[in-house]
Amino acid sequence: MNGIDLASFLDHSVLRPDTRLHDIDTACDAALLYRFRGVVVPSGAVHHAKRRLMNTGIKVVATVAFPHGNQAPDVKANEAMRAAALGADEIDYVISIGAALDDDLKYLREEALAIIRQTRGKIVKAILEVGYLGEKQRFESARALAATGIPYVKTCTGFGPGGARAEDVALLCQAVNGKALVKASGGIRTREQVLEMLQAGAAVVGTSHSAEICAGT
Amino acid sequence: MNGIDLASFLDHSVLRPDTRLHDIDTACDAALLYRFRGVVVPSGAVHHAKRRLMNTGIKVVATVAFPHGNQAPDVKANEAMRAAALGADEIDYVISIGAALDDDLKYLREEALAIIRQTRGKIVKAILEVGYLGEKQRFESARALAATGIPYVKTCTGFGPGGARAEDVALLCQAVNGKALVKASGGIRTREQVLEMLQAGAAVVGTSHSAEICAGT
Repeated sequence: MNGIDLASFLDHSVLRPDTRLHDIDTACDAALLYRFRGVVVPSGAVHHAKRRLMNTGIKVVATVAFPHGNQAPDVKANEAMRAAALGADEIDYVISIGAALDDDLKYLREEALAIIRQTRGKIVKAILEVGYLGEKQRFESARALAATGIPYVKTCTGFGPGGARAEDVALLCQAVNGKALVKASGGIRTREQVLEMLQAGAAVVGTSHSAEICAGT
Repeated sequence: MNGIDLASFLDHSVLRPDTRLHDIDTACDAALLYRFRGVVVPSGAVHHAKRRLMNTGIKVVATVAFPHGNQAPDVKANEAMRAAALGADEIDYVISIGAALDDDLKYLREEALAIIRQTRGKIVKAILEVGYLGEKQRFESARALAATGIPYVKTCTGFGPGGARAEDVALLCQAVNGKALVKASGGIRTREQVLEMLQAGAAVVGTSHSAEICAGT
């Protein structure tokens, strides 16, 4: 995978709580330079990012209920709907981690469906924040989510305990069993890590270090 | 202040991303036992907490846009409105930290007013997350927020850099100049810290260690 065009697999994230508008601009400029797959921004910055990325082929990805995931489903769905209305192409939302820990798969499914319904035509990704979950909960949650028709499950927010590991990506791939794709994210800083995630089965890799990763190749 | 009834100044917070329903129950039970001022829960847990605390005199406080604060104002206002509808007595929302860093006081004012308007009759607190802000930005943001008629400004989320310091509480008190109250929160774990915050001018202190603090007195 040495000659691979890594950039097209990278969602470039700019999600720090102290992100300013010029940080969003810088991220969009980097995305245009390196041709990243997308730029991941807080839902409140979608409008700003979209103005810069409209008609460029680079996706604007909005985080929703980020990073704790503990809003009610209708509140998450409203945030997703508003982000979509302002130009988000994709929605990366954080699942209710408490519901996953309570093994409440029905809750996780209904939450996903509420968000999918409010954002028709957009790609939705469910962030499991696997660092809080046991192995069985990771597997069962991913499988339950894939059964809703959700396009992606995603490992981590980057703000929780632990980051993406190849074994988590492989586990999620096994759980979704071809019904969804897997996005790896959280603590990914090097080209080697990106390759490791892709080899483990990730379809997309999220990182805030995309520019350094691509500049170093 | 040795004989002081500390519990009546304490907002007991249960805000970890992996909070489960039984953690909310435990927090409510502690609040009933010690007679805390309130229990601070994620907006998605308001309904659950309210069932336990209804008609007890203990306030249900919902966090909104927590802990990063980077949703659009209308999305924050919707989350606050939904929390209020489900029984929240008070709303603790995180301001747009990026707007504060950009010295965009007009944005901060309009954001506060959007939330206040959608939650009539509820107490709203604006969390500044002072660890990201310079001293001038802390002062100017608190002053601008107080000018909206907001009842409280609050120091930290507990998930950002640094915790509440007596000097921040004093600075915020000076900035709001009697037009609002100050809630101290973030990293408060001991009775000594609570007393220090109250002596610095805080009207309320938020902590997840309320039970230990009161049990130790």
